Formats: sequence, C-alpha cells, structure tokens
Amino acid sequence: MQEAEERHPFLEGLSRHRGAAPTILVIFGASGDLTARKLIPALFNLGLDSLLPSDFHLIGFGRKPIEDEAFRKIARESIEEFSRRPMDEELWGDIEPGIHYHSGGYDEAEVYRSLEKKIKGIESSAGREMQLVFYISTPPTVFEPIIENLGASGLSTHLVDGKPGAKVIIEKPFGRDLESARRLNQVIGRNFDESQVYRIDHYLGKETVQNLLVARFANAIFEPIWNREFVDCVQITVAESVGVGSRGGYYDESGALRDMIQNHTMQLLSLIAMEPPVSLDPESIRDEKVKVLKGIQPLALDPADKADVVRARYTEGLMSGKQVPGYLQEKNIPGDSSTETYAAMRLMINNWRWKGVPFYLRSGKRLARRVSEIAIQFKRPPGILFSESKKYDVAHNTLVIQVQPDEGMTLLTNSKVPGLETRTQPVKMHFRYAATFGSNTPEAYERLILDAMIGDSTLFIRGDETEASWKLMTPVLESWKSLGQHGLGAYAAGSWGPAEAERLLGMHGHEWRQTGI
Amino acid sequence: MQEAEERHPFLEGLSRHRGAAPTILVIFGASGDLTARKLIPALFNLGLDSLLPSDFHLIGFGRKPIEDEAFRKIARESIEEFSRRPMDEELWGDIEPGIHYHSGGYDEAEVYRSLEKKIKGIESSAGREMQLVFYISTPPTVFEPIIENLGASGLSTHLVDGKPGAKVIIEKPFGRDLESARRLNQVIGRNFDESQVYRIDHYLGKETVQNLLVARFANAIFEPIWNREFVDCVQITVAESVGVGSRGGYYDESGALRDMIQNHTMQLLSLIAMEPPVSLDPESIRDEKVKVLKGIQPLALDPADKADVVRARYTEGLMSGKQVPGYLQEKNIPGDSSTETYAAMRLMINNWRWKGVPFYLRSGKRLARRVSEIAIQFKRPPGILFSESKKYDVAHNTLVIQVQPDEGMTLLTNSKVPGLETRTQPVKMHFRYAATFGSNTPEAYERLILDAMIGDSTLFIRGDETEASWKLMTPVLESWKSLGQHGLGAYAAGSWGPAEAERLLGMHGHEWRQTGI
Repeated sequence: MQEAEERHPFLEGLSRHRGAAPTILVIFGASGDLTARKLIPALFNLGLDSLLPSDFHLIGFGRKPIEDEAFRKIARESIEEFSRRPMDEELWGDIEPGIHYHSGGYDEAEVYRSLEKKIKGIESSAGREMQLVFYISTPPTVFEPIIENLGASGLSTHLVDGKPGAKVIIEKPFGRDLESARRLNQVIGRNFDESQVYRIDHYLGKETVQNLLVARFANAIFEPIWNREFVDCVQITVAESVGVGSRGGYYDESGALRDMIQNHTMQLLSLIAMEPPVSLDPESIRDEKVKVLKGIQPLALDPADKADVVRARYTEGLMSGKQVPGYLQEKNIPGDSSTETYAAMRLMINNWRWKGVPFYLRSGKRLARRVSEIAIQFKRPPGILFSESKKYDVAHNTLVIQVQPDEGMTLLTNSKVPGLETRTQPVKMHFRYAATFGSNTPEAYERLILDAMIGDSTLFIRGDETEASWKLMTPVLESWKSLGQHGLGAYAAGSWGPAEAERLLGMHGHEWRQTGI
Repeated sequence: MQEAEERHPFLEGLSRHRGAAPTILVIFGASGDLTARKLIPALFNLGLDSLLPSDFHLIGFGRKPIEDEAFRKIARESIEEFSRRPMDEELWGDIEPGIHYHSGGYDEAEVYRSLEKKIKGIESSAGREMQLVFYISTPPTVFEPIIENLGASGLSTHLVDGKPGAKVIIEKPFGRDLESARRLNQVIGRNFDESQVYRIDHYLGKETVQNLLVARFANAIFEPIWNREFVDCVQITVAESVGVGSRGGYYDESGALRDMIQNHTMQLLSLIAMEPPVSLDPESIRDEKVKVLKGIQPLALDPADKADVVRARYTEGLMSGKQVPGYLQEKNIPGDSSTETYAAMRLMINNWRWKGVPFYLRSGKRLARRVSEIAIQFKRPPGILFSESKKYDVAHNTLVIQVQPDEGMTLLTNSKVPGLETRTQPVKMHFRYAATFGSNTPEAYERLILDAMIGDSTLFIRGDETEASWKLMTPVLESWKSLGQHGLGAYAAGSWGPAEAERLLGMHGHEWRQTGI
C-alpha cells in the first residue's frame, strides 16, 4: 500500500508534481486552433502554479515555416487572449527563451533528424538529458506518419539516464471504426510501448468527471444503491447548442456518434458503471473501465422501430430567438450527406451489477442548451404509503452530476409541501462547485498535460478501451452507412432532438429528463 | 386501500379539511400565555385559509372572571400581536360573535353544568348539535379535576347525531414520571375513549418533523441505507439559547429531561427509527413509534463514568457578547436546586434494524445557538481508495434534517477539491424550505388544532407512547434525585454543554457534530 502510494501522484499531490522531470514538449500541429486556445494557455497556467518542470522547453512543430521569434509572439498572444489568468511578465520572461519552432512535412524523415538535432542542442546547453513529450494535435491523416517517423528516427526510444524518456500524447479521433482503430494501435505499438502513450479525451480532465471517482468511492451512501436493485436507468447527455460552424467539411466525415458518443459519453458511462478498482493506480482503474465496455451487449439495429439506436440531423430552427440554418444549409456540407448531428442509444451492460438497467446516451448539435450531465435515476419507492396521485407528486430520486456548464451535483428528493395537509413535491438538493470553491478552476488541459509529464495515465485512454468502444459502435456505423439517408430522422435546431429519441425511451417505459439544474 | 384513503385526511387534503364538523372549542387556561401567543392566532389563520368549520364557536375558560366583550378584545389583540398574517376585518367580523368566555374554578362541578348550559344554548341557536373540542392548556395540577368534571358533567360523552361528539386536547406534561403518567392515563381513560384524546407535542406539528415521514417513505434511496449496516450513529439536538427567564419556579420542578428529552426528542427519535408503517393511518404510525420506544434498552446509570446519561446546569457566561447569569442566580431558583438544564444520553435500540447503532440525544438551555436537528451519520467508506490522510479529508456522509430554525435538509458528501491533484473535502448539498417554498408556512398549532377538529390523530401522542417513554426515563430521574447535586455537571452559558457530554460520545468513538448548516 505504502509503495503504491509512493509510485502514484494521484496519491501524493503537489510536492511530487513540482518534481516533474526536465522536459522538452514537442507539439505537432503547433499552428492549429487547439494549440493557441488550449495548450499554450495551459502551459502558462501550469507555470503560474509553479508546476512546470524547472527546465522546460517547448518546440512547436508545423508545416508552415515560422521563425522562433514569430512563434513566441503567437504564443504570447494566445496567452493574452485565452488564458484564464492574466499575463505575468516575470513568468513569461522565464518561459519565452525556451520556446522554439520547427517546420517541415510530417512525413519527411529529414525533418525528424533535424528535430533530433535541435533536441540534442537543448540537452547539451542544459547539460542533461531531458524527457521528451510529443503532443500530436494534427488532423488524424498524419497521425501514422508522425508516429512512424518518431520511431524510425529513434526519438521514441530516447533515453534519460538509461531509462525510457519519451512519451506521446495523442488527440482524438483514435480511428474512425474498429479496423482503423486497430491499425492505429498497431502503428503506435510498433513504435512505442503502451506505457509511453497518452490518448487524450479532454472530458476526463474536467473537474466533475474527475470527481466521479471521488463521489462514488469516497462516499459510503452511494455504492449500496448503485446497482440494478435500486437504479431505474442512467441517462448521459452531451448536448451542444452550436452547429457545425466552419468545421462542416470535417464534421460531415465524422458525425455525432464518432465525434461525441464513441469517446466522451462512453468514457462517462464507464466511470459511472465500473466496479470499484482495487486501487487508484491507473491500470486498476482502466482495467475496470474496459471491463464495463466489454460487458455491453451488442446493439439491436433491426427492425428499425425496435432498434437501440437513433440518429437524426438538425433542420433550421430558432436558437435564442434567432433563426439558424439546417445542417444541409451549412457551409461545406454535401447535398447528399447522410451524417447524423444527433445520436441516441440504449446500452445494456450484461454484468451482475447492471443487468436490466438501461444506459441511455444522447449527444447532438444545435440542441436547446449546452449541457453535459449524467443522471442516475433511481427506482420509485414502493407505492404503499405515498403513491403517485394528485396529492403525491412522487418523482424518481435522481442524482445528477453536472459536467458543464455549472459543474455540480444535484439530488432530487421528494419532500412535504408546507401546508396544512400532507402533499409531496420533488425538491432539489444542490452542490455547486463554483459556489463552494470559486470559479477559477484549472482547465482540463492543464491537468492532462501535467499528468502526462509526470507519468500518471489515469485520465488517459488505453488502447484496448478505444477498441472495445469501437467494437460496439462499428456495426452501428456500418448499418447507418448502408442505409444512407433512409431512417435518418430530423429535429429542429433549438429543440431537444428528434421524436424517435423520445420513442426509444418510451418503448421501455422511460423518458428523457429535463436537463439543467 | 381505497377505503383507508377515504377515511384518512392525511390522504385527502383540503376538500376534507374544509368539511370539519361544526365545532365548539373550549380552551381551559384561556388567560394563559399559550392561548394568546399560539392558539387564538392559529384559529385566526385557519380562518384565513377557510379551514375553520362553517359554524365555529370558541369558549375561553378560566378562573379569572372576564366579560365576553373583554375576552374578544384580548383575542383581537393577540391576533394583532402574534399572528403570522395581518388582521382581516371581514374574517374578524365573522369570528368575533362566536367568541365567549366562561369563568370558574376548574374543580367546581357547578361551573361545568353552567358550561354545558352555555353549549346547549349555542347549539340551539345554531339549530344543530355540534362537536365539542376541549383544549386543556392549564398547569398540570388541574388536568385531573378538569378531565374528571368533563366526565361527571356528561360533556365527555356529548353526542352529535347519536355518535360520540367530544374530543379532548391535552398539552404536556403528561405526567412527571411513569407512575403519574399512568395515573393521568387512567383518569383520562375513565372519562374518555382513547380515540377522543389528542395529546399535543407541538414538535410534531412542525413542517420538518412532518416531513420526516415523507423524506423516509416517499424516497427510495434512504430506506436501503437506513439501518445498522450503514448508519454509524444518530444525533438529535434540541438546543435553546434562552435561559429559564421568568419560568424559573416551574422549570426547577421539571428540568431538561422532563421538559424536552422525554417528549420532543423521543418523538423525533421514534419517527427516525421506526419501521415503515403498513399504512399512513394514525394507528399504524403510532404502533410503529411505540415499538421503537419499547425496543430501547434500559439506560446504564452506574458506574457514573460509564453511564449512558449526562446532566449539567449552566453557570454564568457570554451569550452574543453579553454576560448572562448562571442557573442558580436566576429568579425563583432555590439555592439547593439540583435540577439539570442540560441532559444528554446514549440510547440503544434492540431490534434487527438498529442493534449496535447509538442514538445520541442532547437538549439544554443557554447553549450556543438555538437549533433543533437530527443528524444521521453514516459509516465511512472502507479506507481502500480514499483513506483518511492529509490529502483525503473523508467525512462521514451525514444527512441532517433541520427542524428549527432554517428548516431544511443537508447532505454531507465528499467531493474532489478543484485543482491539479486529487484532494477530497466534505461539501454540503442543501435544500431549504424557505428558499423553495417561501417562508410564510403554517405554525405547528394550526395543523394540530385542525387535525384534532377533523379527527386525525397521526400527529398526537398515544397513551402507551407516553408510558413507554416514561418507563425509560423514570429510573434516570430517580437516580438523579437520589444523587442530588452529586454528579451534576456544569457548563458555561453560551457553550455547547459540559465536558461530560463530550466524554459520553468519546467513550464510544464518536463526537458531537457541529450543528448548523
């Protein structure tokens, strides 16, 4: 136990964090949106908290030729625009000289040789070997050439004091179906050991998602009722109010299932449904998560009216009183598109704990409100004393974990309405992160980059997790592809999704809850 | 089922309430404090809600000779001073002519004959027989003569349409030990049937106390963990910040155990600990409550340092920065008094559900804050994942039901502290009655008087309940009496009680929780 604690930063805290080894972070896709909006501001904020390694260098890697000076300027601007805390000149003075840029094609072996040279140069002026963290934030088409070249150039087997000293962080998508996910994992596996790989799902860096483990296992009152005997159903909602915007071309190749369900909502599901791990070390947790995914029964696709899955795309509608276009009218969407902007499904987990309890998932664009939440809906009390009637409005007890916005937890209970007779009414007990802790909490990317630097893979996705999830989703994608537009539902922008999604739950005696507090 | 619901106003609501039979309410002790502060304002507020019977008369009964007109003026003034809602002239115009006064000695047979004559007179001008409700709000010394005279005069067997049409409401104390409680019950039993008797504990009229039944049995998530397997201990606090004030003479004959513990806190305990009743009808609920009381094991009194009970009285101290006198310095307190102003105890219920779970009760005057609450403290989670340490502040999950002030419910859970490492901290989920429902809720006496008029005895105490409670408490009282001042602890006014009370819990591995939200 003691030893496990020594090993594990999850169990140790800041003192260990401050000790992250001297690091050179190489960002592939350095001129991209994510780098400017999230990664560089995250690094700056880690610096503010004294959580950057004492010796830290950043190398931006991109196709576009840019001078170091220009890239530093871009980095500074991105902090000024996107950081949650204001610029600190002293810190910037420390960081700036360590920022470099390296340009070239992602598939040119020569460019990796010169990258290695640059790295050696930094190491030699620092007088020490340094950990290398490769952050791949490019379109998925160049994942494989980058990884293969990191391997071929020997960068993936970089050593620090004779021990493995290279890590690779990869942004989704991890494949677009089971076959491509397997191939990607094989390419990764040829060049890196799984222990060097950090697949990012930024949802796992969110405070409320991290709190799932604490909520479940640092409290004694939830675990006894966290099973088929007491839970009626679980509903996971990841709703966006935005449309596809300027990303139409990319999105049409993806769709709601690939973009959201297969990764974010499945991650939430596995954290909610998993068995208590034997310890908090990363492998124990990820072992339990993958067990859940493997326990999900294949989805029913036929007949269509009894299927476990629903897809639809938005038509024009009103958002906050403003008319917005339908999906087919968005920029770069082909007229014969059959891409879903909304997906919902019913998953059944075939294990001792959950047999018979439906997990309903839904995600979509242009929904009424931006909200991500997990709702554990418990069974009603036996209708012996307070049974459903005009006087007794007896709701399902529901524990709602709000992931965004307004992170928090709400417990729906039934209470007496004050007055001279006994009427009941559902009431809500609230806990709001912002009200208790203030609102300036770290961004997901801060936690995740830090964890990767110090080698804690708890909040990253293991290769077998991605494959298990794709194994489940691929038959759905294949079925939808073969059906084309046939069976693709429609919902007005600004609504809560298509009627088919209501039917999906109605068929099993449930209904979607009204999201929000 | 349907039939039970027909019978039971708990299950029916206002329509039935409005139908309360024409009533003559006789208040014994009409010139007392309770009548002015609570009873008359309660009647007025029932009137505002159209919940007084269409034909309603009030007869104030007291020793002091007062004219009807003078009593009406007193009644009006008490509404103006103490009602939660302002005077309504139209309603007052309706009520006023029905207010009468009747004076005489409580033990004079003649006075009851003239009372009966007055009642007959009212009935004959109304042209109908009317229900009689006798409200005994006098010092306990005259309980017996009043009850005997109600019997002797035939008023207790008053008929309406050939059916029993008299009820008696009795204010505490119901005896001062087991013997006197039994004698009082015998006197009552000779003159009334138990179904005619409404023993008031005004705590049972409080919204939050009524909500206990709803909270427990209209929710499905609490009952599975409401037992020895998950509950660590239960703490019931009824704390007053006031001293004995002008009631010193009365209080010194009573003490904290008689004044609070034996009735209010034991009522709270039995509602919290009882098994689910077979229905919401009054007898089913009271059957379960009395079962709890009978299951409590006798209290250990010896040796003193291992006893289950603690008593103490306050010494001078600071309340809100103001110096206040000790109990012995209060008016009308004899110098050799050994009366406790604070009592605490540990009760064990010997049944399948609660074996091994201590119920800690405490009540006192001049405590730091006025607060009544029930705290269900659950066991900690097994210390496997998040065990107690500097990083993990893992509190007992605790469900707190606040009875007064600030009625509501709070659930204490453990949550992740936002930040770049996983630390935990207890946080609170709140539900506040006032925030959800507004604050102008009915006073306890409104509900109780109404329930008595319509014949719902759920919130009243049955004779066997008082005896079961006295059976438990009498040995404690006898022991304290024989010890006199020996072993009587002390606590400074404005503190949370004596050190002995801390030791009582410490000895069993517990500690009093900090009350308040």
